Amino acid sequence: MKKVTVIGGGTGTFVVLSGLRDYPLKLSVIVSMMDSGGSTGKLRDQLGVLPPGDIRQCLVALSSAPKLWRELFLYRFEKGDLAGHNFGNILLAALEKNTGNYTEVIDWASKVLGTVGRVIPVTLKKSHLCVKFDTGEVLKTEGRIDNNRNGKRRIVKAFLEPRVSANEMALEAIRESDFIIFGPGDIYTSLIPNLVVQGVKPALQKSKAKIIYIANLMTKKGQTTNFKASDHLREVEKYLVRRVDYVVLNNKKIPPRILKMYQEFEEKEVEDDLPRDANIIRRSLISEVQYISPKYDSIKRSILRHDSKKLAKVLVEIIKG
Amino acid sequence: MKKVTVIGGGTGTFVVLSGLRDYPLKLSVIVSMMDSGGSTGKLRDQLGVLPPGDIRQCLVALSSAPKLWRELFLYRFEKGDLAGHNFGNILLAALEKNTGNYTEVIDWASKVLGTVGRVIPVTLKKSHLCVKFDTGEVLKTEGRIDNNRNGKRRIVKAFLEPRVSANEMALEAIRESDFIIFGPGDIYTSLIPNLVVQGVKPALQKSKAKIIYIANLMTKKGQTTNFKASDHLREVEKYLVRRVDYVVLNNKKIPPRILKMYQEFEEKEVEDDLPRDANIIRRSLISEVQYISPKYDSIKRSILRHDSKKLAKVLVEIIKG
Repeated sequence: MKKVTVIGGGTGTFVVLSGLRDYPLKLSVIVSMMDSGGSTGKLRDQLGVLPPGDIRQCLVALSSAPKLWRELFLYRFEKGDLAGHNFGNILLAALEKNTGNYTEVIDWASKVLGTVGRVIPVTLKKSHLCVKFDTGEVLKTEGRIDNNRNGKRRIVKAFLEPRVSANEMALEAIRESDFIIFGPGDIYTSLIPNLVVQGVKPALQKSKAKIIYIANLMTKKGQTTNFKASDHLREVEKYLVRRVDYVVLNNKKIPPRILKMYQEFEEKEVEDDLPRDANIIRRSLISEVQYISPKYDSIKRSILRHDSKKLAKVLVEIIKG
Repeated sequence: MKKVTVIGGGTGTFVVLSGLRDYPLKLSVIVSMMDSGGSTGKLRDQLGVLPPGDIRQCLVALSSAPKLWRELFLYRFEKGDLAGHNFGNILLAALEKNTGNYTEVIDWASKVLGTVGRVIPVTLKKSHLCVKFDTGEVLKTEGRIDNNRNGKRRIVKAFLEPRVSANEMALEAIRESDFIIFGPGDIYTSLIPNLVVQGVKPALQKSKAKIIYIANLMTKKGQTTNFKASDHLREVEKYLVRRVDYVVLNNKKIPPRILKMYQEFEEKEVEDDLPRDANIIRRSLISEVQYISPKYDSIKRSILRHDSKKLAKVLVEIIKG
């Protein structure tokens, strides 16, 4: 069985895992631990726990538990003291407060959710993502970077404060993988936070794994304003310090109605300016369902997403060779 | 196997169940749904859920799950948005928000906790406990009644607003029991709230079950100020509209150090003024461990408790005949 490791954390990773879990693969997911927005950020600040949000999403994506458990994990309280908090985040926080170490936290949660595959925090140490702009300005914490809507300055460097070392299980997964999948997802707040953890780059360089990058559908103002596919790829490869082996792109026209919604946020379709090449794979990949964040959700989430089944199909084609 | 039903809700019920669960009995517990203080009261008010606190305690008392799960259920967050909330309460609230009915909520939670025996809410309808004093004053909601420290007026009547009908499963358990156990526990806020639910009294009267009443160790100011054992028993029997068959009392001297702590709250040892009778059973029943509520806990909990093993032993003696 092929060993496949997905590296990421956000909604894009959820989509990839939800599709791949139905195939006979040895799946792992390495999850960014730099999230600091919304419920996750509050629990981090108030309780001193590791950020639960991305771990929760990955656990649910890989869950084989009855529907109710999966729904419960993602359930977000709407009112009162608990407003905005996901039940899954609360469970992970409570587990962390009651166990010795985070590997145990994930083991317990994985058992409850019957996860197929392993969910691996990229680091078990607390750290915050920081970015430096071409203006010399520095923005600290993932939450603030994610909320940054200033599209005039460009990120030139992403780093962690403090610098932290990788979880040994993450390095092992990277070293032993046949394929490593990046994206889709916000490159600076979901993908690169994994790459700047100490030990990840050398492991990726030494790994025999082929790297697949799934291009984003839309730009993100303040992070990837006006970025084309090649800009995304260049940035990812800069932090990988390695070439990507395969790029997966959507070539299905995005409905004008949706583009208009993004236009309001000054965001647009990522232009495919990559060459015609056998390893640059273009398919119809967008989901027919659009996602609108509920009012009590303090984080703006992507409206347009990849379709997990279509995406998994093309990934498995690549993996099977 | 004897069918034994414990009726109550609070800490006293937890102690009884924790002891009885180790014996080969067909155990059920009927739980008051009138709690409105602390975390439970907030979740009730803010989310419109049924009060989870007593259900949680009973589920944990009967749990055969690994220690971590039981600890997790009782774990109370200390800081931030979640401060004062038990994880178990949050889980029950989330389950209620994600399932159709409360029986399903308890089924799911029972599965997670591997409970031995059935936890049965006395009603599945929302209602509040009210009491009327000899001064004519009326106090509404269990939380306020529990916090009432005015020891000069006496409760003359307990009732529900609105009047609600019993859960059919509770009535069935009462009808089919061989033994029904009341107490220990605050008689007006933990025991009687079960008896004033419509349908409970007739079921108790028709039931062939023998009734065991476990007397409280200490008086409670504002509810049972200066009550002796006979006063407690008279009140319980008034709401039962039936005689109790067995009374279990502690006869072990309570350490003066502990009595002094209660004195600060103007509470004292319940005086045993009951007659010598074969069905009035006196044993050494107090726990060697004292419980001090942590600061973040908004509810004052009893310092002195019954010892669950000693209590279970005498109960099983009665049950086995």
